[in-house]
Amino acid sequence: MCAVMKFNQCLLQDIAGTNNDNTVWKWHIQDPASQRLTWNKPPKSVLVIKKIRDASLLQPFKELCMFLTEVKNMIVYVEKKVLEDPAISGDENFGAITKKFCTFREDLDDISNCVDFIICLGGDGTLLYASSLFQESVPPVMAFHLGSLGFLTPFKFDSYQSQVNQIIEGNAAIVLRSRLKVRVLKENWEKKARVDEKGILTNGDSESSRKSMYYQVLNEVVLDRGPSSYLSNVDLFLDGHLITTVQADGVIVSTPTGSTAYAVAAGASMIHPNVPAIMITPICPHSLSFRPIVVPAGVELKIMLSRDARNTAWVSFDGRKRQEICHGDSITITTSCFPVPSICFRDPVNDWFESLAQCLHWNVRKKQNYLSSEDEEF
Amino acid sequence: MCAVMKFNQCLLQDIAGTNNDNTVWKWHIQDPASQRLTWNKPPKSVLVIKKIRDASLLQPFKELCMFLTEVKNMIVYVEKKVLEDPAISGDENFGAITKKFCTFREDLDDISNCVDFIICLGGDGTLLYASSLFQESVPPVMAFHLGSLGFLTPFKFDSYQSQVNQIIEGNAAIVLRSRLKVRVLKENWEKKARVDEKGILTNGDSESSRKSMYYQVLNEVVLDRGPSSYLSNVDLFLDGHLITTVQADGVIVSTPTGSTAYAVAAGASMIHPNVPAIMITPICPHSLSFRPIVVPAGVELKIMLSRDARNTAWVSFDGRKRQEICHGDSITITTSCFPVPSICFRDPVNDWFESLAQCLHWNVRKKQNYLSSEDEEF
Amino acid sequence: MCAVMKFNQCLLQDIAGTNNDNTVWKWHIQDPASQRLTWNKPPKSVLVIKKIRDASLLQPFKELCMFLTEVKNMIVYVEKKVLEDPAISGDENFGAITKKFCTFREDLDDISNCVDFIICLGGDGTLLYASSLFQESVPPVMAFHLGSLGFLTPFKFDSYQSQVNQIIEGNAAIVLRSRLKVRVLKENWEKKARVDEKGILTNGDSESSRKSMYYQVLNEVVLDRGPSSYLSNVDLFLDGHLITTVQADGVIVSTPTGSTAYAVAAGASMIHPNVPAIMITPICPHSLSFRPIVVPAGVELKIMLSRDARNTAWVSFDGRKRQEICHGDSITITTSCFPVPSICFRDPVNDWFESLAQCLHWNVRKKQNYLSSEDEEF
Amino acid sequence: MCAVMKFNQCLLQDIAGTNNDNTVWKWHIQDPASQRLTWNKPPKSVLVIKKIRDASLLQPFKELCMFLTEVKNMIVYVEKKVLEDPAISGDENFGAITKKFCTFREDLDDISNCVDFIICLGGDGTLLYASSLFQESVPPVMAFHLGSLGFLTPFKFDSYQSQVNQIIEGNAAIVLRSRLKVRVLKENWEKKARVDEKGILTNGDSESSRKSMYYQVLNEVVLDRGPSSYLSNVDLFLDGHLITTVQADGVIVSTPTGSTAYAVAAGASMIHPNVPAIMITPICPHSLSFRPIVVPAGVELKIMLSRDARNTAWVSFDGRKRQEICHGDSITITTSCFPVPSICFRDPVNDWFESLAQCLHWNVRKKQNYLSSEDEEF
Repeated sequence: MCAVMKFNQCLLQDIAGTNNDNTVWKWHIQDPASQRLTWNKPPKSVLVIKKIRDASLLQPFKELCMFLTEVKNMIVYVEKKVLEDPAISGDENFGAITKKFCTFREDLDDISNCVDFIICLGGDGTLLYASSLFQESVPPVMAFHLGSLGFLTPFKFDSYQSQVNQIIEGNAAIVLRSRLKVRVLKENWEKKARVDEKGILTNGDSESSRKSMYYQVLNEVVLDRGPSSYLSNVDLFLDGHLITTVQADGVIVSTPTGSTAYAVAAGASMIHPNVPAIMITPICPHSLSFRPIVVPAGVELKIMLSRDARNTAWVSFDGRKRQEICHGDSITITTSCFPVPSICFRDPVNDWFESLAQCLHWNVRKKQNYLSSEDEEF
Repeated sequence: MCAVMKFNQCLLQDIAGTNNDNTVWKWHIQDPASQRLTWNKPPKSVLVIKKIRDASLLQPFKELCMFLTEVKNMIVYVEKKVLEDPAISGDENFGAITKKFCTFREDLDDISNCVDFIICLGGDGTLLYASSLFQESVPPVMAFHLGSLGFLTPFKFDSYQSQVNQIIEGNAAIVLRSRLKVRVLKENWEKKARVDEKGILTNGDSESSRKSMYYQVLNEVVLDRGPSSYLSNVDLFLDGHLITTVQADGVIVSTPTGSTAYAVAAGASMIHPNVPAIMITPICPHSLSFRPIVVPAGVELKIMLSRDARNTAWVSFDGRKRQEICHGDSITITTSCFPVPSICFRDPVNDWFESLAQCLHWNVRKKQNYLSSEDEEF
Repeated sequence: MCAVMKFNQCLLQDIAGTNNDNTVWKWHIQDPASQRLTWNKPPKSVLVIKKIRDASLLQPFKELCMFLTEVKNMIVYVEKKVLEDPAISGDENFGAITKKFCTFREDLDDISNCVDFIICLGGDGTLLYASSLFQESVPPVMAFHLGSLGFLTPFKFDSYQSQVNQIIEGNAAIVLRSRLKVRVLKENWEKKARVDEKGILTNGDSESSRKSMYYQVLNEVVLDRGPSSYLSNVDLFLDGHLITTVQADGVIVSTPTGSTAYAVAAGASMIHPNVPAIMITPICPHSLSFRPIVVPAGVELKIMLSRDARNTAWVSFDGRKRQEICHGDSITITTSCFPVPSICFRDPVNDWFESLAQCLHWNVRKKQNYLSSEDEEF
Repeated sequence: MCAVMKFNQCLLQDIAGTNNDNTVWKWHIQDPASQRLTWNKPPKSVLVIKKIRDASLLQPFKELCMFLTEVKNMIVYVEKKVLEDPAISGDENFGAITKKFCTFREDLDDISNCVDFIICLGGDGTLLYASSLFQESVPPVMAFHLGSLGFLTPFKFDSYQSQVNQIIEGNAAIVLRSRLKVRVLKENWEKKARVDEKGILTNGDSESSRKSMYYQVLNEVVLDRGPSSYLSNVDLFLDGHLITTVQADGVIVSTPTGSTAYAVAAGASMIHPNVPAIMITPICPHSLSFRPIVVPAGVELKIMLSRDARNTAWVSFDGRKRQEICHGDSITITTSCFPVPSICFRDPVNDWFESLAQCLHWNVRKKQNYLSSEDEEF
């Protein structure tokens, strides 16, 4: 799967840092089947994420937590508000168990260094949520669907005990789902804030008026026209060069994982999560020729309002944290160094094609011959 | 651009050969700008490929060859039939120069170890042809367009001398264009051959009745229904698993380079040549949900006629070597270990977006607001 | 272009009202070139519509109004707010002329029976606006583009005098652009209003709690998810039957005229305005197989929120009058009996293809052969 | 559903022949539910068409024929070769019945004036074949599917007796499926023929060297590149004007009925058969902006090879009668005056949506919310 390229008289060098030790270029073709999870020590702490307000998940959630706590002797982390659900806090039998849990509050408590393993119960949204809790390294995630198969939730709950045992014993297949690191730079943040808080206009100096925020997204960054009935009008830069201006309802910058989410609805081809790439998909572009494109994972994208944009735009991250983008603000996107290690039910290839068929009915068809032949077999 | 992934208790291992020395997984994000060409020794031999039957190329071809031979003192390789063109063989002035050339005949003479450098004059087809001459390592290719810009021909001929000098002096940006290695296995080859040659039916034993042929393709392998008016009906396997059955006019398996050729006409998204991936695009599938997909470069694809296919199919390689595929035959496709090092005019990113705009008019548009607003700015 | 269908023993009857006098079915194929405008009496009153806040239109507007008033002796209607623009009200020379104008205010004054002829100056939005002023019959419209050609604005202003003369003298080609008649039925209108106005909850009786509103649209009715980040979830009925449920960012119901506006951005095929049809186009549907469809102009469509929709939806009419749609509300759409007679620059066919090329760059391409041949013409 | 358009001072005239008696334009909106079949006299003769070489159809075919002959006392027409099938000719019980049948041979015997009614047994191809037998008026067609529902075969065979009785008693809903009348004009027909037959070149005079052929198609005319690996390169004229040049694998000119056949595979929107229109769909065009278009049924299309086309093209009619098109030849297409009256199972609207769902899985989907919300319902 790999070859050293030798030519008579020349040398193809990788001037980036990683291959400095090599004097000859390596043409490396990643085998998607090669990524495996093994544990140095058995995982001790597990974060359990449950879709809330879904009654059908209560019993599985309780069973799973009891199994992890009582049988596997693991430390279970649960979000505080999950336990505050009356259906859980009111269950006396379960109450004793919950006292052993570690609880945390979103945006307030940092558990990123406490957790060895994550289990999700619910739809694809639970994994997006889990991703949002970890701005750097993400522990391996095992995701159960309770109803129908999702792209990110390959496990059935039926035989959860043996499945969890297998994963903990090690040697499971994983797919490293790349994430995007997004930096939003607001130009006039301080000035605005001062007006909002004190009610009077204070001119901030240019240094202090900027604010950067960072996001890790697993599916996509969406920039759209929000409530405006005008098209969004944004400039797209790649490694510092203006490559095109997007005049459309919006634009989706997605990971391969996100290619089967909103991007596919906007017309994108589907990309396997093991392909190191970023997909750029316009939403309802007026230009007939504005086909989606796929660029290498290593580029830096930047999006800004066009100079002549009449309206602001709105940005969201995996469907969350929606905010307005004004003239001068910028959104910078690179592939994150911290992918989500997503545990496979079978392997990265079979899981993906199974979810294409189940979730998108990909090429599910009735056999039919639409062309008649010259002969009489009409 | 690279991060070692560390987790509290686990290890993500790459069990494939290349990272055996590493105990910790490397998450490597390739920077497309990092690939550069340098020469250990100045290139001495150069293969010049010219589109034939195009009178406008004669003068540039002669000029270039004289420059390479007389000024640069390089050994020029030219295909024999190019020199047999009366417009060349009849030119007495040029005749003296051609005597210094090394000539070869396609399919008969192997020049793959003699050439340090390739220069193409003409359209994208010249690079496809150059690729077909090298089944293993391909020397760096510099491609000039004489008329309009092509995807594979970024250089203008106007200032060819300084451009060639720059490349020979080294330090040019290159893009490694992946190729597909295609193996066609014909089940009943010998049997057929024996009938054809001797006119009598000899039963070959099962071993000797098979024949494998290998092809390196730069754009795409196309399987289609040929002259049949029935749909082609083929099974597509990935790493040994049946992933779908294609009922369509055909199917295109393309490199990222090929994504902007036939695949884009069949509805594919466009993929930058630096993305390590293979694109699978159906041609006019009857199923509305049969969207193109992008899989990792490291997989093995196999295509065979479906058991219930009523007709044979036809396969071609970069538009050439068209042949029939019968029941039992198979086409196996992997990413080749031998990409085409294509020299950039500017760099891999700018060259690609320039060609998207020039060749496909990608998102070239008239500014227009199709939505009226609530206010009076209609 | 027309044939009476005769069969040996049968009769195909049109049981609808219009052909009652015929005992035999008429298969009528409309020739788009057959529609012409002639005047019984020369038009006396003309409505001039100008895009506001566009300085480049001021001089043409003044010239045109003077020509119509002074030279053609026509009664010019202008919207009041157009004349209130300081650039017009402050022009003393033009002031004398404006005194002869008839003015009106949108939504307050009804001019639908006063106007013989409409002239638009500006972009496609001016014709959408003109359409919105006439809920029943619309006088013939002549639309000038000042900048680039629009779909609805075929005339160049350069030789406006001779062009207007020609139209008034009669015998111009027209295209009857169908409109959609949309009825919005709000279920709990009164109840809501009472709460809003008085601050207390008064139960309205069921009769008085409903309210119907009517709109005439020239391009499209759009139903979308508005500020919600959930998909819109609406049921689509045709002649009383549920035909599908739309799970998407929204759905566009458009006229053929509207097929080249928002619908084309959402993936629709383009339909010539002379085709009597209604186009239904989903906006970013999650289902891969949800292709746009075209139904006969004579059907009745109804859209309602699905029973299990978690959020409301928003509707707009030619991009205007945006409003919320709640559970129980319905939107009923039929082809209006009152099309917009749009005067052609040349004829319905040439004008349309000219605008496809100019506005959408339809099939504008670089000639290229992406397939190499077996022979050497690479 | 119809309105007379009145304007203050003007008159919109239809200068085409059909409305000469009207002094005022009629804006007629066809209601698709209004077309009904009634019989003046009960049908006496029935043509039964059976897909050949399909063993599963033998028993239904025999049953149906016995019912029509013995119970309904109708004269049954069957193609000669159908009865020559050993499975039929060898059945002694059925033999007696077949003696009562009228038989005919395709292309030799003209039964177009003998048949009151057509019944098809098999797939959509049977109706295409029935259509090809009638170059002018087509009797009403009732089409049974034996396996899965087709677009053109709405009836299930289970209760065929009561269904046939109902149709014969009258008052069934029909959909008039428009056909295209295609004229192929070969420029050098005679000359070629003379060379072929006598082996010597005889110059035909220009008059006698042309030949016209006519075809009636129900689905589509396809022009493609045939065995050539070059793109087809054809000019498309509408009412005598060149509207575009097609550089593609081919082009499909289809009826609304054909929009759900080959055209949908090439990316077309689906058009209900009651819409009077012609669809033009390119097959794999290299231009990203070459979207399919829909033009009024009343236009005349003409297709010719472009002057600079390097290769010939191939044309076929509903997948049959494939032939080569050379420089100078032309294909002229108009809407035929002779549609196919296709009997509905329920009505034109329900039948169509049922077939969209069954045959194309149109918008069949799994309910899923791909966007997370701000709140915690992930």
